[in-house]
Amino acid sequence: MDIVTPFQFSLVYNALSFTFATMGAATLFLWLSRSQVAPAYRTALTISGLVTAIAAYHYFRIFDSWTAAYQLKDGLITATGFAFNDAYRYVDWLLTVPLLLIELVLVMRLSAEETMSKSIRLGAAAALMIVLGYPGEIATDIPTRALWGTLSSIPFVYIVYELFSGLGRSIAQQPANAQGLVRKARLLTFASWGFYPIVYMAPYAGLKGGTVVTTIQIGYTIADIVAKAGLGILIFLIAVRKSAAEDPENTAITV
Amino acid sequence: MDIVTPFQFSLVYNALSFTFATMGAATLFLWLSRSQVAPAYRTALTISGLVTAIAAYHYFRIFDSWTAAYQLKDGLITATGFAFNDAYRYVDWLLTVPLLLIELVLVMRLSAEETMSKSIRLGAAAALMIVLGYPGEIATDIPTRALWGTLSSIPFVYIVYELFSGLGRSIAQQPANAQGLVRKARLLTFASWGFYPIVYMAPYAGLKGGTVVTTIQIGYTIADIVAKAGLGILIFLIAVRKSAAEDPENTAITV
Repeated sequence: MDIVTPFQFSLVYNALSFTFATMGAATLFLWLSRSQVAPAYRTALTISGLVTAIAAYHYFRIFDSWTAAYQLKDGLITATGFAFNDAYRYVDWLLTVPLLLIELVLVMRLSAEETMSKSIRLGAAAALMIVLGYPGEIATDIPTRALWGTLSSIPFVYIVYELFSGLGRSIAQQPANAQGLVRKARLLTFASWGFYPIVYMAPYAGLKGGTVVTTIQIGYTIADIVAKAGLGILIFLIAVRKSAAEDPENTAITV
Repeated sequence: MDIVTPFQFSLVYNALSFTFATMGAATLFLWLSRSQVAPAYRTALTISGLVTAIAAYHYFRIFDSWTAAYQLKDGLITATGFAFNDAYRYVDWLLTVPLLLIELVLVMRLSAEETMSKSIRLGAAAALMIVLGYPGEIATDIPTRALWGTLSSIPFVYIVYELFSGLGRSIAQQPANAQGLVRKARLLTFASWGFYPIVYMAPYAGLKGGTVVTTIQIGYTIADIVAKAGLGILIFLIAVRKSAAEDPENTAITV
């Protein structure tokens, strides 16, 4: 167990608590906002809120695991002997990452067949990406980490290809007032997902001990906030604009 | 760790518990009242309730941190060695202070572009104000506290300017029965936010030890209740009056 400094302990502690609050707030916002959009977009908001709710649960668990692993007393940090559970993030991602792609597909409102086929293909690729990344995350040597990281990046490249080719064509058919936001949502997904492998590679950079633990925890936390709560807010804005474009008479639809 | 007296310990302890109850109650009131106002104002109530929900969570954590830091035994207070976590207030404000300005903008029902641009500008200034304040809050010497406090007041001055110039013009376009309340909401925001820097400066006044800890905790707690639950109630009243003004036939809209 790598020992962190009191500053690093508090930084991760506060970041985990902040993220629990953010994910919980995003969930409530997304679910309460269901009535503000046309029925066709409510499932997209339901699922966006599910993603942040699942993340809130896991951040609560990660917070508890962090405080169980270390003790800050009289300004000193000691390891309690209980291991910090890395796996929470991966079981979270296994559930939420496929759902993130599905919420993006749903808010685009493609045909029923397209929605189904894209959800299954993208969702399966996302799950495979997470499963292949985990053995590397818990590996103690860099070559093993690099091997699984590289395997995991194959489904990631496929997802990026799908987002920019297949979904790209569908973006052109979105209403004019929502096209820019849909492009932003795609870009946010691509950029925030691209941030995870950078964090994953932190140990390659020669970081050691408490510093590498802190960098990985803070890095994944920032990426999760952007990829989940940030995307959720964009999905909400897209749903509101598309609802308004499709039914300009309906005054119930408004931010 | 500054030792408080048993009276000071109980005062802060009860104030924290009171505030958790107040914030929780405000949240439920605001969310249950969504159906009482026109759809255009529901997002304002959703966000007002989010602010108090996030605050309720943090008061729960602050309460736990307070009781973990001190021990009241046989009428004597001793430090347990676990530090009281000052950061909860700042991570709370980082989330809630931008949202408070956004709820004020939303209830005014400006054009979609104005709503977006004002929310982003005011929200970013508010987040910057909090981030600049924190290094001073945890500083152990007064000059460092004063430096960061001064830096933090720059975005605060900008926010006040925006509230009274930019938003001032929009107030004149509000329905007659709501103008007075919108002015009150702006004044309440200005006055309660102005109270935080006064609390922040408590150590300058030569207060020491347990007295300064107690003054800061009670001061921030009072300011939070006014700025969050108090503003939430005003936002609700404004939303009800504007809903009634815009649709006098609708008997569903009523306090």
